[in-house]
Amino acid sequence: MNLLLLTEGDFTAPGKVRLTDRRHEQLYKILKAQPGKVCKAGIFNGKVGSAAVEEICREYSVLSVQTENPPPPPSDVILTAALPRPQTFDKVIRCGVEMGVKEFHFFMSRKVEKSYWQSPVLEKSHIDHEIMLGLEQCGDTIPPRVHFHRLFKPFVEDALPEIICGGAAYVGHPAAPAPLPTAVPGKVTLIIGPEGGFTDYEVELLAANGVTPVTLGSRTLRTEHAVPALLAILKPPSLR
Amino acid sequence: MNLLLLTEGDFTAPGKVRLTDRRHEQLYKILKAQPGKVCKAGIFNGKVGSAAVEEICREYSVLSVQTENPPPPPSDVILTAALPRPQTFDKVIRCGVEMGVKEFHFFMSRKVEKSYWQSPVLEKSHIDHEIMLGLEQCGDTIPPRVHFHRLFKPFVEDALPEIICGGAAYVGHPAAPAPLPTAVPGKVTLIIGPEGGFTDYEVELLAANGVTPVTLGSRTLRTEHAVPALLAILKPPSLR
Repeated sequence: MNLLLLTEGDFTAPGKVRLTDRRHEQLYKILKAQPGKVCKAGIFNGKVGSAAVEEICREYSVLSVQTENPPPPPSDVILTAALPRPQTFDKVIRCGVEMGVKEFHFFMSRKVEKSYWQSPVLEKSHIDHEIMLGLEQCGDTIPPRVHFHRLFKPFVEDALPEIICGGAAYVGHPAAPAPLPTAVPGKVTLIIGPEGGFTDYEVELLAANGVTPVTLGSRTLRTEHAVPALLAILKPPSLR
Repeated sequence: MNLLLLTEGDFTAPGKVRLTDRRHEQLYKILKAQPGKVCKAGIFNGKVGSAAVEEICREYSVLSVQTENPPPPPSDVILTAALPRPQTFDKVIRCGVEMGVKEFHFFMSRKVEKSYWQSPVLEKSHIDHEIMLGLEQCGDTIPPRVHFHRLFKPFVEDALPEIICGGAAYVGHPAAPAPLPTAVPGKVTLIIGPEGGFTDYEVELLAANGVTPVTLGSRTLRTEHAVPALLAILKPPSLR
């Protein structure tokens, strides 16, 4: 937890919070915080600043909070992915949130197992929790929107052109002639395939709807490694 | 398993292997391979090509193997990291191997918990297994060398200058004036800090021994996301 993420409901008075949940446990047990301890804090969907511990005991913590700075700038990459297996789904959300993605789209594709759509990791409460952990890690306060599309063709033909609108869009494809470009300014939509890859038909449909196929190198990475690698190539620190 | 990774001991005759272990289980149970099925194959520390199933039953598989192509080119990034917590250590190895790293160095640092050095994940047999899984994922056959350094100062002053020699070296530091550069040609040494970051003393000692501090952006990423992101920034597909 690099940021103590607070919501309206935590405040007992202006600038004063009382915590009893996981965040209190973290302060009390892991950080062994004492009165006077100052940590980074932020308001969910709001500004960031600091919180100072005023009282702390086994049951609760009371902190005074000051937030006046904007959260880190968002990424302008839209991350769209064929729905990954449940444990990978969590990793994609966590990594994307840490790297500032504010819009996720998950969609069906030929090589996505139908059972993935029944997984409890897709429940809103679970996703919200993963988002909170990601925001706490990277010091951000602004949650992303997460969308699901259960049919490939309507997603690509109807939804995707609007999602892409105004920026470039890339999909990895081993046979593509050019590599994924580095440091692309402005809005970019990145499309991640399923574990077994897209079918030729799927790549053609994507290409016909505004997506440029690109090569990602000669190695096949696991989705949880491909996502941070590709997000970083599109938006390296030198661009920001 | 994108590559069936074979060793000398698997061969019963030239070009013929018989498998009964995890790889056989994968062929039989997961891939439900039938005679005639062809998959990518490679010889550990050698060439890549293909293997065709000749016989397969519950107990064993027999395949004919042809390997004539070189494995994918290695990365010329040397990955050095403050020893991460055990579960993260595995992820760093897996990701580095997938992205072609052939030299790892793990070292002690002020904010590394001493208990991490007692973890069974550091046993050679465990590391070798993780390396095999990484090679199978990315289609490579060449294992990396993995080194450990239990004292920070001797590592930085004595070992590191030799490791770095002939290339650039970078360490992430929030106060650094310049960002990590993109697409650095040739040999590069990347230095990853511990979860709590390096101390000022540690960054100064690194800088005094040939390492350039660079900023990595305004977000603090988990180590398992920072590693693929930084490796990709240094060596994007457009460089290769």
